[in-house]
Amino acid sequence: MKKSYLFIVALFLLFQNSLFASGTATWIWYPGDYEIWLGNEMNNRRTERGAFFPPFWKIDSHYVVVEFSKEVALTEPEEIEIKVEGRYNIKLDGKLQFGMPERFLLPAGKYSLNIKVWNQATPPAIFVNGKTVKSDGTWKVTFEDKEWIDESGKASDTSTTFYMHAGSAGFNSIDNPPSAYKLAVTPQSVVSKERYGEGELLDFGKETIGFLQLKGLRGKGNIHIFYGESREEALDTAYCETLDRFSVDGVRIRDESLGLTYPLSDTFTMENSKAFRYIYITKDADVTYSDIGMLYEYKPEEYRGTFRCNDEELNRIWDVSTYTMHLTTREFFIDGIKRDRWVWSGDAYQSYLMNYYLFFDSQTVRNTIWLLRGKDPVTSHINTIMDYTFYWFLSIYDYYLFTGDSRFISEIYPRMQSMMEFVLGRTNKNGMVEGLAGDWVFVDWADGYLDKQGELSFEQVLFCKSLETMALCAELTNNEEDKVKYEEMASGLREKLIPAFWDEDQQALVHNRVNGIQQSEVTRYSNMFAVFYDYLTPEQRQSIKNSVLFNDSVMKITTPYMRFYELEALCALGEHDRVMTEMKDYWGGMIREGATSFWEKYNPSDEGIEHLEMYGRPYGKSLCHSWGASPLYLLGKYYLGIQPVKAGYSEFSITPNLGGLKWMEGSVPTPNGEIKIRMDEKTIRVKASEGNGYLTFVSKSKPTTSVGTIEKMDENHYRLWIEEGKEVVVIYKF
Amino acid sequence: MKKSYLFIVALFLLFQNSLFASGTATWIWYPGDYEIWLGNEMNNRRTERGAFFPPFWKIDSHYVVVEFSKEVALTEPEEIEIKVEGRYNIKLDGKLQFGMPERFLLPAGKYSLNIKVWNQATPPAIFVNGKTVKSDGTWKVTFEDKEWIDESGKASDTSTTFYMHAGSAGFNSIDNPPSAYKLAVTPQSVVSKERYGEGELLDFGKETIGFLQLKGLRGKGNIHIFYGESREEALDTAYCETLDRFSVDGVRIRDESLGLTYPLSDTFTMENSKAFRYIYITKDADVTYSDIGMLYEYKPEEYRGTFRCNDEELNRIWDVSTYTMHLTTREFFIDGIKRDRWVWSGDAYQSYLMNYYLFFDSQTVRNTIWLLRGKDPVTSHINTIMDYTFYWFLSIYDYYLFTGDSRFISEIYPRMQSMMEFVLGRTNKNGMVEGLAGDWVFVDWADGYLDKQGELSFEQVLFCKSLETMALCAELTNNEEDKVKYEEMASGLREKLIPAFWDEDQQALVHNRVNGIQQSEVTRYSNMFAVFYDYLTPEQRQSIKNSVLFNDSVMKITTPYMRFYELEALCALGEHDRVMTEMKDYWGGMIREGATSFWEKYNPSDEGIEHLEMYGRPYGKSLCHSWGASPLYLLGKYYLGIQPVKAGYSEFSITPNLGGLKWMEGSVPTPNGEIKIRMDEKTIRVKASEGNGYLTFVSKSKPTTSVGTIEKMDENHYRLWIEEGKEVVVIYKF
Repeated sequence: MKKSYLFIVALFLLFQNSLFASGTATWIWYPGDYEIWLGNEMNNRRTERGAFFPPFWKIDSHYVVVEFSKEVALTEPEEIEIKVEGRYNIKLDGKLQFGMPERFLLPAGKYSLNIKVWNQATPPAIFVNGKTVKSDGTWKVTFEDKEWIDESGKASDTSTTFYMHAGSAGFNSIDNPPSAYKLAVTPQSVVSKERYGEGELLDFGKETIGFLQLKGLRGKGNIHIFYGESREEALDTAYCETLDRFSVDGVRIRDESLGLTYPLSDTFTMENSKAFRYIYITKDADVTYSDIGMLYEYKPEEYRGTFRCNDEELNRIWDVSTYTMHLTTREFFIDGIKRDRWVWSGDAYQSYLMNYYLFFDSQTVRNTIWLLRGKDPVTSHINTIMDYTFYWFLSIYDYYLFTGDSRFISEIYPRMQSMMEFVLGRTNKNGMVEGLAGDWVFVDWADGYLDKQGELSFEQVLFCKSLETMALCAELTNNEEDKVKYEEMASGLREKLIPAFWDEDQQALVHNRVNGIQQSEVTRYSNMFAVFYDYLTPEQRQSIKNSVLFNDSVMKITTPYMRFYELEALCALGEHDRVMTEMKDYWGGMIREGATSFWEKYNPSDEGIEHLEMYGRPYGKSLCHSWGASPLYLLGKYYLGIQPVKAGYSEFSITPNLGGLKWMEGSVPTPNGEIKIRMDEKTIRVKASEGNGYLTFVSKSKPTTSVGTIEKMDENHYRLWIEEGKEVVVIYKF
Repeated sequence: MKKSYLFIVALFLLFQNSLFASGTATWIWYPGDYEIWLGNEMNNRRTERGAFFPPFWKIDSHYVVVEFSKEVALTEPEEIEIKVEGRYNIKLDGKLQFGMPERFLLPAGKYSLNIKVWNQATPPAIFVNGKTVKSDGTWKVTFEDKEWIDESGKASDTSTTFYMHAGSAGFNSIDNPPSAYKLAVTPQSVVSKERYGEGELLDFGKETIGFLQLKGLRGKGNIHIFYGESREEALDTAYCETLDRFSVDGVRIRDESLGLTYPLSDTFTMENSKAFRYIYITKDADVTYSDIGMLYEYKPEEYRGTFRCNDEELNRIWDVSTYTMHLTTREFFIDGIKRDRWVWSGDAYQSYLMNYYLFFDSQTVRNTIWLLRGKDPVTSHINTIMDYTFYWFLSIYDYYLFTGDSRFISEIYPRMQSMMEFVLGRTNKNGMVEGLAGDWVFVDWADGYLDKQGELSFEQVLFCKSLETMALCAELTNNEEDKVKYEEMASGLREKLIPAFWDEDQQALVHNRVNGIQQSEVTRYSNMFAVFYDYLTPEQRQSIKNSVLFNDSVMKITTPYMRFYELEALCALGEHDRVMTEMKDYWGGMIREGATSFWEKYNPSDEGIEHLEMYGRPYGKSLCHSWGASPLYLLGKYYLGIQPVKAGYSEFSITPNLGGLKWMEGSVPTPNGEIKIRMDEKTIRVKASEGNGYLTFVSKSKPTTSVGTIEKMDENHYRLWIEEGKEVVVIYKF
């Protein structure tokens, strides 16, 4: 225990260090504010057939006046460089200094340095760089300093100003302020072209996103561009989901959708990126262009998680998953690149989990959690969806478990409290949640009727887990009162779950209870979650396998979204071989349909263009949807078998499972390292560059190891403690 | 009764008409949002010795995404012109339309027209103009439309979207959007110049505010400008409260305070207006200018209230009051033009009351009430001050009483509710308010010790009146439940006031109660307010006159702020002659000290530069402070004697009192008219262009009238019903 405690401390220090490396100045702001602002830029970029299409939930904004403060102790005067996004002042121990200086000589001594900034359009942010005084996460910030003075000039002594630690995101250059942030771009080429009707159809070879370029524009007239994730969509000018129209008058080009005009130049690059594989272009005869280019827009990410095996189809599934994941990993984790290009909590929750097995991009997880929560007052569920509120809670403890970053928990905890107050204000007399007016009870896009009335077992399971998360996070912030309160609420609700929803005859949790009466319908959702949340007795868990998960009369899941949890539940029940088959059928099925990224929804029984339709629109479906990428998570967590046991991988577990493969190898990222594994039917080779933990495996005869001592757990089950940095080779019998 | 009811209806219609004249398109926005945004522009304009000086309370911002909607029924297609501040889309019955058109052809039929706008920097606002479809206050707005669709494309049917009526402020030209709003300017000249030391001292002859202009700038070097409301301040370069520094390099001029650079031109006009009477300029030898100009910056207002009498000193007091009032009536009612240039609720409350007797500028009252309240969540008292929260409540019913505008009450009522929830969350076990950490208990700038501990009688009186206001406004919005709730709270608190604070020995309300123990100190504040709120028995009221108001051993008031209420209390007790003397002494005293506008604080016993000092700074005092202008309110309300009895002056009362004058004449504005009166020692001449009401007066013999019938009330007291539009002459005996 002591060892792992020291590890946590060490990792925490390391982590803090990587965020706020001593001696490095960075742009800072009120925590969450840059994220909310950037999220507005992201969420308001969606268009539908040339119309601007913002979200329908409340869009928050940053605090427009923020004070930044730092206690300074200087033995000699020090000149600082200051750059600010906004109008600002500088105070030394409350005394205002002249003007808005870009360089300022701090006197020797101990005093408070305050910089107060006003900015309506973008978040107030500062960059301060001196020999020792540098803006970083140790600065404090407030949106309300409440420092009045009385008639004599004396400051108030009963201030209750609430300070937070400043937020930052690695903007370490004074000339690279946060409001200027853009994703990276790189040119991408057309793979094939063909004349079609009056126009030209271009194929970029795979799903992509970026800024189209019109080169060598001449003449006068209109140019129409129709985008398609499929060939059918691009060619269906009346129904494709996204399009653009430009008019050229010989000297200027006007983007008719955005209402913006630009002077003509050699290369006109569009203002807004679009998602597509195909584009179809038509134009008036009097306007010409020499070529079409494209700048692929992406977030630079390191592919830290890897997977390879003897099955090329599975390798392809992994690759398409990682590409899908990369396309939807942008300023935030979004749902899909064509549609909605919005940040949805349920979708993002899965992206976080997948991200831990691929990029381990903690910054984008934090960005997304801040944005989704927004500001008080809470006026609705996150994205208006009840279940999405619960995923938001769950994501926070997950984040801590994978990263070990307890600082973030402290920062976000006040917003967790007010979000949970909102939820608790909407519970019924049984302490359960029901959809009230204004609540979207989503669950899943189901191919069949899904009752949303009364107390849904699915929502109660998520609610219960959210209350447990509140208690865990309260403990991490040393809030004993909240910890006890939420533990009591969670256990109170948990005790009600089985009496309320378990149907002994059907050996399953039923879908819902209406006016206190248990309904008879069984759906998969709550049963799946109850399995991996361990809310059932071992007997109930095993029953569910046959009564629900393998029961074809229970409505099937046709979204990768819920397939994610369904297959996870099966893995938790040890059904790796079966899950492997289902992965190859389902995701392999999409690839066989021509997918270059995974889809929002896939029903294997659909045919042809039926695959493209959704929401009553022929091309409504998104063909690049983050929740489609889940194989990379399943392969990392349940086949490579690696997951954190203690925060930030200070302890991990490795439980590899070939699931019918002959061999597999891969790596899973940890905060500052990686865990590598290679397994075939004879050997398991493991190396962790940080952390320690048990390798657990099955062997039909007594295994051997190159390092350490293997313990026998029970028949055929063994474990071996893996120490940081040491490569271990285990010989076992398959 | 029936007659006045009809009048209310008629006035209401007239009022609605003037706000949203049929057939006039106007810029619209989310109610309160433009006001909050403009308030940030205003409140963030303050500087102190060249440093930007924003407020210390929470600064809110507008909703950045707003949907505007209108139910349309057209018998034939209609083209509309559209202008929007922000990025926008158009929907017809939920169907998105292409682009951001500036002209759009609405089809015939019945449907919803929605325009959704995103704007981070300035409030989303739209202007729509067609033959019949025009943006106006009948449009609805929301910041959260919650209109999700399900997988089939069906819209949610349990939406609880909260809609408000759109806000507007008379921006009736498509080319004059709200974000471009500026006060008016007009050139103003220097009255005298003199060389002083190394520089030049300019006197503009009176307190003023505006943009200084440097003409014919040549050469290189620095120019320093020191502003003074007094000659002493301008010349004291080390301590004057405001200053500017410019550097000229032959081709450019740099404003060193704002950090902005401009090309040199014939006339350089400063970015920010400043308040001053005197300016002192010094400069380097190598830089020259040919002249100094100034653009006076002001809000165009009609001086609808008038007053003249036989006493020239009183006429001068009226004139300086109206000038003070005009200088501080800007985008909002502010405290003072030099300092703080901020919107403070206690100050604004008096400005509203004075405004009703001078400009009757209802728009600026509404602007100020919206801004002060800001957005939820409430994190502190308004301006952090407990008493200022209460004045905010009181101002709203006053507004209704003077204007008859019940629509505004409906709009602001939800924010009244959440503000009152904040207050109720901070009451003690007696249901009384005490200053908790973070609450500024202000009361007044007192020349002596003012205990702020425990339950202050002053705060309870304001709290009680605020609860009564909540009940009245709940009734106006047909919220019966709230009405009953707040009536019960108000009467509960009122019953506690006398037992808690009345000291039978001292015949006064004591200042406070600490830990349930009545303290012995008596101050004027609660006693004054209890008089005009009628919270006392007739005997107690009369006792207070001698035990408190005329008692020199009770700490004297030295701010015009509390003099306002003190003199109002004396008027309410019939002490007009005495108040007239005090007005002439106190405000006349400031004029004799050279005031061209009235001050933040005036202690007649101070001498020379002692008058300029405050907050421990030699020129800290504001010499143009709105709360200094109260004579115009006292003269209108208690001497001309005119006030509304029913909302919007549908019924008024006229109770003129010469207060020792030989004659007086004047007019008081009503929403759409005025009430004129002239009185001397023999005749009273009255004419109301709108409304009806009683003229009440004293006569030592039987009076006669030119119109109607005089009723005798009791000995020497008479009344006469005045009908709209009819001039009446009454002959009476003084």
